[in-house]
Amino acid sequence: MFDLIGFDADDTLWHNETLYLAAQDKLKQLLSTYQPAEVVEEVLHETETRNLRHFGYGIKGFALSMIEAAIELSEGRVQGQEIQALVDLAREMLDAPVQLFEHAEETVASLSATHRLALITKGDLLDQQAKFERSGLSTHFTHLEIVSEKTSETYKTILARHGVDPQHFLMVGNSLKSDVLPVVAIGGQAVYIPSHLTWAHESASGHAGEHRHYHELEHIGKLPDLVRQLAAG
Amino acid sequence: MFDLIGFDADDTLWHNETLYLAAQDKLKQLLSTYQPAEVVEEVLHETETRNLRHFGYGIKGFALSMIEAAIELSEGRVQGQEIQALVDLAREMLDAPVQLFEHAEETVASLSATHRLALITKGDLLDQQAKFERSGLSTHFTHLEIVSEKTSETYKTILARHGVDPQHFLMVGNSLKSDVLPVVAIGGQAVYIPSHLTWAHESASGHAGEHRHYHELEHIGKLPDLVRQLAAG
Repeated sequence: MFDLIGFDADDTLWHNETLYLAAQDKLKQLLSTYQPAEVVEEVLHETETRNLRHFGYGIKGFALSMIEAAIELSEGRVQGQEIQALVDLAREMLDAPVQLFEHAEETVASLSATHRLALITKGDLLDQQAKFERSGLSTHFTHLEIVSEKTSETYKTILARHGVDPQHFLMVGNSLKSDVLPVVAIGGQAVYIPSHLTWAHESASGHAGEHRHYHELEHIGKLPDLVRQLAAG
Repeated sequence: MFDLIGFDADDTLWHNETLYLAAQDKLKQLLSTYQPAEVVEEVLHETETRNLRHFGYGIKGFALSMIEAAIELSEGRVQGQEIQALVDLAREMLDAPVQLFEHAEETVASLSATHRLALITKGDLLDQQAKFERSGLSTHFTHLEIVSEKTSETYKTILARHGVDPQHFLMVGNSLKSDVLPVVAIGGQAVYIPSHLTWAHESASGHAGEHRHYHELEHIGKLPDLVRQLAAG
């Protein structure tokens, strides 16, 4: 039934937000002599949001935002060694091992036996490629697509390139805004697997009434059964 | 004769290294109270080289390297507002207008009338996409390929995806290491257009004897004539 199944990567197949939250905790600790944790969190979030247009998604842009927030929060008093700790943190994040979600490996392996699978992800090119290689899942995927935004236009372009009709495309991910709604909008099917840590920027205004347009699963281990059901019509 | 002509972007179609050199000059100025300009240049270069594996190519990684070099060069005494100036500089670099090389537009327009053209470039995804759009050249290209490294394997993958035999592929660029040698190695043809500002990381050990394997031009305006000559055999 499906000619191609697309998977989001970060927080769909492997943990990602945990890495950012751990970094945020380190920033709070580092700046605790300057500001309370809540203020650090708020200013970091504002800085990230403001910089998204310039820096895009990914660890390097996040690191520049952490540095900028540290300067603002300390009113310029932040020390060279404190900034150095943030640059080191960025390097550690980039080198961090990929932690797969439970059931991710078996699900991908099982579906790859019957379907073409594409990993469709946003973020830094080098970083996402490295994670894809380190994940151990790369052999199950026929395509890797790293994009700067996931809009309906993005999905149309990818599907056209692979000669796939949107009606025969299923996208799986943890973001309504990036993985579900733009796919449904072009006539594709989508599976929403909410992550309890979905990033604030990723929230879209979805409400219960829209649920009929896509499928929702509690965890990725339930995906093969759903795909079988959908194929059985 | 050619089914696809590939163009490198930075320092082949438009100025790029000038942007980095201007940023380096600002860094030297900013750190002039700490270190002489030559030392700044040397430490920045060392820092960039060491970080390349982690941060890849592009402005965000360069900005993190500038920040790290500033901390080292000032022995940690660099001020918050000085670091802020470097983050601001990164944003300015990302927003800088694209300055096409002389002849670039007419060459690309002329060749696009008879050939499929692909832009094949390294760097930050978001940044390179934005430059492609801002360049005014995007309508002449049928494909945009943003990659993390340009190896023979990279070119093979791209050509396979577009169904192009390497023998019918011509790559044009300013780097022997990235644009010329890996293409020649898989049986493609390549045109080397040296930029007087080619970045130190991009130098490969090419010597005169290898020249028979590729073509060298003084500037991009001479490309359409060369393509005609090659087609005439």
